[in-house]
Amino acid sequence: MSEQPELTIQGWGPRPADDGSAGLEAAVPKAARRYLGRELGWTPRPTPAVPVAEIRLGPSRLPDAARTALIELLGEDAVSTDRESRLRHAGGKSYLDLLRRREGDASEAPDAVVRPGTTEETAALLSLCSARGIVVVPFGGGTSVVGGLAGVDADDRPTVAVDLSRMASVQALDVPSSLVTVGPGLRGPALEEVLGREGLTFGHLPQSWEFATLGGYAATRSAGQSSTGIGRFDELVAGVTLATPSGVLELGHPPASAAGPDLLGLALGSEGTLGIITELRLRVRPRPPASSYEGWSFRTWAAGLAAMQRLARHDLLPDVVRLSDSDETRANLLMAAGAGAKALRGSLRARGHGQGCLLVLGWEGLPDLVRARQRAAASLLRDGGAVRLGRRVGESWRRNRFSAPYLRDRLLDGGLLVETLETAATWTALPTVYDATRRALRESLTRGGHAPLVMTHLSHGYPTGASLYFTVLADRDDALPIQQWLTAKRAATDALLAAGGTLTHHHAVGADHRPWLEREVGPLGVEVLRAVKQRLDPNGICNPGVLLPD
Amino acid sequence: MSEQPELTIQGWGPRPADDGSAGLEAAVPKAARRYLGRELGWTPRPTPAVPVAEIRLGPSRLPDAARTALIELLGEDAVSTDRESRLRHAGGKSYLDLLRRREGDASEAPDAVVRPGTTEETAALLSLCSARGIVVVPFGGGTSVVGGLAGVDADDRPTVAVDLSRMASVQALDVPSSLVTVGPGLRGPALEEVLGREGLTFGHLPQSWEFATLGGYAATRSAGQSSTGIGRFDELVAGVTLATPSGVLELGHPPASAAGPDLLGLALGSEGTLGIITELRLRVRPRPPASSYEGWSFRTWAAGLAAMQRLARHDLLPDVVRLSDSDETRANLLMAAGAGAKALRGSLRARGHGQGCLLVLGWEGLPDLVRARQRAAASLLRDGGAVRLGRRVGESWRRNRFSAPYLRDRLLDGGLLVETLETAATWTALPTVYDATRRALRESLTRGGHAPLVMTHLSHGYPTGASLYFTVLADRDDALPIQQWLTAKRAATDALLAAGGTLTHHHAVGADHRPWLEREVGPLGVEVLRAVKQRLDPNGICNPGVLLPD
Repeated sequence: MSEQPELTIQGWGPRPADDGSAGLEAAVPKAARRYLGRELGWTPRPTPAVPVAEIRLGPSRLPDAARTALIELLGEDAVSTDRESRLRHAGGKSYLDLLRRREGDASEAPDAVVRPGTTEETAALLSLCSARGIVVVPFGGGTSVVGGLAGVDADDRPTVAVDLSRMASVQALDVPSSLVTVGPGLRGPALEEVLGREGLTFGHLPQSWEFATLGGYAATRSAGQSSTGIGRFDELVAGVTLATPSGVLELGHPPASAAGPDLLGLALGSEGTLGIITELRLRVRPRPPASSYEGWSFRTWAAGLAAMQRLARHDLLPDVVRLSDSDETRANLLMAAGAGAKALRGSLRARGHGQGCLLVLGWEGLPDLVRARQRAAASLLRDGGAVRLGRRVGESWRRNRFSAPYLRDRLLDGGLLVETLETAATWTALPTVYDATRRALRESLTRGGHAPLVMTHLSHGYPTGASLYFTVLADRDDALPIQQWLTAKRAATDALLAAGGTLTHHHAVGADHRPWLEREVGPLGVEVLRAVKQRLDPNGICNPGVLLPD
Repeated sequence: MSEQPELTIQGWGPRPADDGSAGLEAAVPKAARRYLGRELGWTPRPTPAVPVAEIRLGPSRLPDAARTALIELLGEDAVSTDRESRLRHAGGKSYLDLLRRREGDASEAPDAVVRPGTTEETAALLSLCSARGIVVVPFGGGTSVVGGLAGVDADDRPTVAVDLSRMASVQALDVPSSLVTVGPGLRGPALEEVLGREGLTFGHLPQSWEFATLGGYAATRSAGQSSTGIGRFDELVAGVTLATPSGVLELGHPPASAAGPDLLGLALGSEGTLGIITELRLRVRPRPPASSYEGWSFRTWAAGLAAMQRLARHDLLPDVVRLSDSDETRANLLMAAGAGAKALRGSLRARGHGQGCLLVLGWEGLPDLVRARQRAAASLLRDGGAVRLGRRVGESWRRNRFSAPYLRDRLLDGGLLVETLETAATWTALPTVYDATRRALRESLTRGGHAPLVMTHLSHGYPTGASLYFTVLADRDDALPIQQWLTAKRAATDALLAAGGTLTHHHAVGADHRPWLEREVGPLGVEVLRAVKQRLDPNGICNPGVLLPD
């Protein structure tokens, strides 16, 4: 298996060699920098992260007796309290996480990192921690963007991060049943490597694919870029093993069952609050023999939305769907350097699509079926006023599908606020959710007469609605950057919920969204979740800082 | 809206005019009767139901004060304690239910029938019944075949059936979002009538379609005959309102959400044990412009299974899939009278498929896509040794898709044991589950040297596996008919679980399967369900006789 890359402590990709401004210049074309400067009132300035050696970290609070018991259970090598291990498991990769780590704050760092190797060890670990009052935060890829690894505990008990990297193998492959059994610490690239040898694929490709783990996808109800075609991660899970302080649950009975309420659906999205997923049974598929990615353009966002709705209604959405609004389209075209991009911009202007909306569609499957679906969809798209731009635009998106978080590091180096948020709503509510969220973000983040840049795309499409993904760029408030974003995030979340959006379509609740969970599921819904947690985790040691409001 | 037909108290369809043997003769062709007589050692004999007037029913145990309080809440017209109402709400339509009702036993009858008209009334009703210790059994279509309406209570408290027929309207239709909001008492035909006017369809068509309600489908995780294409009922539910003794839950956020564990999935399949579903938001779709039903034949069951697995793996299964084993195929061909059937039998024999397995495939959708999928599937099927029989076989199945329960009444009139059971398993486990279940049924039901007839079909197909549906015919033990079936059912259930099948794929748990729930979800899984129930229904008044073991 290939060597797995590691996320850096203060960002996504490697740190630039110098003070950071050269990194920004290499990552963002001049025209785009000028545009951002003008729009945002932003002056590019080096705002580098403090050196890792200067990150502040208190001493481990893990009691000696607990450390000894953990070592007895898991072995000396599987229990770490050193600075490097603790820093590597401090929080996730949200804008707020990165701000804190770049400023030298690692207060979310666990007191220790433990690495169980089996379901049995994990169950024993949870039982031990429950008895000793030690908080447990499961750690998969560490890519949470919603504070899923916050490790905050109202009782301020010592905390261990449970690193799942030792449980990262492909345990069984049942080819006739299209099922693979894996450990929770396995990452997508390693899984695809094993499946590829059998002509199979899993196909779940979120932006965090290089680093995130399969257990993490399950715990957070992830959705990949091809979710429109192959389904959300939760739809690809046939079963999980969930170790809890009260014992081990084996959940899910493929292919389907009517034997009572769905307990598997309680483990999915539980974000470590009920226990730790120690094994997953996932649906795989044959590698599609044909794939075709193409670009289209609409004159307006409304026309694009209407066409997507019609495709969805007639079950003609392809595997990948990404409709960018005009703000995102303009920024994407500015970011794409080179002659091809220039020609494309010219051609769009000539067709009256200069302020248009780009659509990327990706089709996969048997060649005849791909062609038949493409033809049927093309006819609906043309009826909706779309212009076909061809494969180059589609392939360009596909090449860069994992690049945004690397770019974010460079934008942070240069003094920008960069964050994303997402929701989903019915087709009927979608335009209102779009307007309300943008307005809230723009009102909250306008500084010195300059509004932020809010770029939006519709990605995951369903018959009943779709998700919206917002990327926000603004001139950072260097004095109070955390407060600046918290205020904007609060305004945006209030607005999107009021307009009928869901609290989160695929980023999960974490610490950041938990004040709103009750608005999403109601007070009695929260009580039901508490009753389940109380039964499985009576001492409340399982990731108490996330999901459920205090 | 058309008049809705009513199920009869002792069966599915209307009673025959005379002693029943003429009914049997009209319903079953002579060749089939002879075949059954020879195979089962069965002598056709009139075993008619006792007249309805002779069904034994004790006096209502509902206390006067409770009756007064119910009338105060719901109105005089919405509270019934008369004999006819109580008999019409006594149990469901399993073989055991029908045996009991035909013998004059209505001991499961509720003490009263109440008919709330709104969510608020239902919530108030549950709160009232919880305070007064009155057991509540929700009643939709009354079509349960697993004792879902058993109304058994360990504390022997008075019981009311909550008839949902007053909450049976289409409340809202959001065409762009493909969502319809309905009351739980609405039936499929009435929903299709409303949707048809808008060019839409819901498409969920189980065998009970004429009588079952949408709320019942949700409470039992139903699957319709087109589930392979459009999905199980639970996949078509965007949200439900669940009234419980502790308050009202609004569950589900279309199109999808990552905001924590799936609470909607707890309401689905809850079989009335957590409360009563008072509203459903369902996904609809445009009426498919093309549909094509066709028949195929395989020489053997194993060849048929292998071909279905390959279709599933390559995402080429159509909307309807039904592969009958050779026992079911032979019986179906004997039941089909007329020249066409005779010619088909001859043609199959001539091709060496005299002991073959019939396959019905139903394709629906846009004409071009239906053709492209049919072509791709046909190529895989021919590679797997299948012979195409054409549309007549497919259309014949389609015409008779709801007829089996009517036929069952007539077979019961003539002294037969007739029951069905079902399960699902992965493609890998399916052959073992098939063999083990058949063997258990045959061993248990062999009488006087005659084995029962066990007919099986694969219906609902998934990438990871499929369901198996068994129909059992045997010479009834007139002295101990209930014991005869209970023994066989126990043996079959033990066998299919041991072989890796699920307890139930679409009939639900009810009273009949609850002794095995712990084997399906484990003791801790049962404890989680109990914790949820305890929070929502602390006095245990909600359908205590089903789902959860005592």
